[in-house]
Amino acid sequence: MSMLVVGTMAYDSVKTPFGERDWALGGSATYFSLCASYFTDVKLVAVIGEDFKNEDLEMMKSHGIDLSGVQTINGKSFHWKGEYGFDLSEAKTLDTQLNVLAEFDPCLPDSHKDVDYVFLANIDPKLQQKVLDQVKNPKLVACDTMNFWIDGNLEELKKTLERVDILIINEGEARQLANTHNLVKAANEIRAIGPKTLIVKRGEYGALLFHEGSIFSAPAYPLEEVFDPTGAGDTFAGGFMGHIARMNEDDLSETLLRQAIIMGSVMASFTVEKFSMDRLHELKRDEVAERFKQFKKMTHFEELSGSPVS
Amino acid sequence: MSMLVVGTMAYDSVKTPFGERDWALGGSATYFSLCASYFTDVKLVAVIGEDFKNEDLEMMKSHGIDLSGVQTINGKSFHWKGEYGFDLSEAKTLDTQLNVLAEFDPCLPDSHKDVDYVFLANIDPKLQQKVLDQVKNPKLVACDTMNFWIDGNLEELKKTLERVDILIINEGEARQLANTHNLVKAANEIRAIGPKTLIVKRGEYGALLFHEGSIFSAPAYPLEEVFDPTGAGDTFAGGFMGHIARMNEDDLSETLLRQAIIMGSVMASFTVEKFSMDRLHELKRDEVAERFKQFKKMTHFEELSGSPVS
Repeated sequence: MSMLVVGTMAYDSVKTPFGERDWALGGSATYFSLCASYFTDVKLVAVIGEDFKNEDLEMMKSHGIDLSGVQTINGKSFHWKGEYGFDLSEAKTLDTQLNVLAEFDPCLPDSHKDVDYVFLANIDPKLQQKVLDQVKNPKLVACDTMNFWIDGNLEELKKTLERVDILIINEGEARQLANTHNLVKAANEIRAIGPKTLIVKRGEYGALLFHEGSIFSAPAYPLEEVFDPTGAGDTFAGGFMGHIARMNEDDLSETLLRQAIIMGSVMASFTVEKFSMDRLHELKRDEVAERFKQFKKMTHFEELSGSPVS
Repeated sequence: MSMLVVGTMAYDSVKTPFGERDWALGGSATYFSLCASYFTDVKLVAVIGEDFKNEDLEMMKSHGIDLSGVQTINGKSFHWKGEYGFDLSEAKTLDTQLNVLAEFDPCLPDSHKDVDYVFLANIDPKLQQKVLDQVKNPKLVACDTMNFWIDGNLEELKKTLERVDILIINEGEARQLANTHNLVKAANEIRAIGPKTLIVKRGEYGALLFHEGSIFSAPAYPLEEVFDPTGAGDTFAGGFMGHIARMNEDDLSETLLRQAIIMGSVMASFTVEKFSMDRLHELKRDEVAERFKQFKKMTHFEELSGSPVS
């Protein structure tokens, strides 16, 4: 089934305690689509500048990603510069140059309007709505957002949220959005705004799924070497949505959602092993299957037989 | 099977955003033993002052806890005063009065030397060793510690660690002890010191078990109301060790360890629902069984059928 993703394509300059990389391929829609391309057809809508490297576009095309919705306009591509400390949990942003992103106006080619699955990466909620105005009858819409929009344009963000099925955000953002520290309460409040399903990303602590009455907790894969956490969240979303699109069930079952969360976690665990998209680009089918099994092994325990206490 | 716990019995003055309680029953050995008493016979060794309330001792006896190893000496009981913010993740210590704890010299009654299971709660590593000098041939020894000893007496702490099977510590302490942020590396280093098994407590993020070549990740129970996190870690240890003692297997299997981690998490999730030991005191067998099932439900997902990617 076909998936539409709208978000950013960028160049990142990233420094971690383990090395640095200048002008590396980045951006939410780039990570998402490269990851999702392992599972389904992906149509990417974004804006790039004239400086965007042809080899990067070719790499993405080699993964079957449809770039016909990518607009190239005069100017430079979006650039982000950041640095991580030893805990790798949060990047310190050193510089953000919006460049052509400031003029982003997502216009979908006709071929992009009939998609079944839509992921709205973290962009201006008004633009997210504009995308939703153009798609005809998607089966499922998920979105991401960030503190910048929660702080700066909550009203527009809520209008987006009313129109999406699944919200995928960071723990801190969930708390901020619901104005409560308790995640169970936050999930109730956020789901009352619109999205029936909430996924809370917790970095090295994994992810929580709130869906109907149930909660699912997934760990992150404990890696001995984490090289660069950039793009982990967008890769997670790509694996999550990719798996759902590939299975293409009529209804979103709890079983499918849970597998998709694990698949997102699997794919994110690969992304952080190398800089930029290096690891995602080279990924083998067997590696994905093997790590999925590792997640099962890492979380499995036996039921008790008989009474739990004396 | 019988369990020995050596640690503190205390009175806590605790303030959380949801209320406050002055001079509430507290202490590591108190929480541990009340929790473990649901699973096995518990012998408690600690020191208390003349001010210790008879009703509190009676409450503990009503749970079958053997207090014959508790020494009462002249002076006041150990007192801790702390406050939690809305995130409830870490207490700000406002006051610590060691009082009689400063004179603690654990001497085991003869009836306490033949125990099978030993838990050394967080006390001076020298005292922990002194306990180990007195027990005859325990099947299993676990211990806790804190940053105070890692900072202040690492040499003695290492001597303790050489003699224990299982170390149960907080995430920050594991990182500090191994001097690395990466928990997989930290686990390798800590296990090289002595304990074959490491359990890393992560508060609201659950716990990690490192045992032989495998890693097990357990979530914490996402509660809508967390009232007072005091004692959660010691309760976790009590549920963990309690379950192991109750099952009393010849060898420590991975299956048993994982169930025990979940049982620790189950019991800790009850403790934080009310102040002090109020919730632990009133706990019903059915509630434990039901919450254990909830943990299974919260973490379960289906294996993939067929290839994971397209």
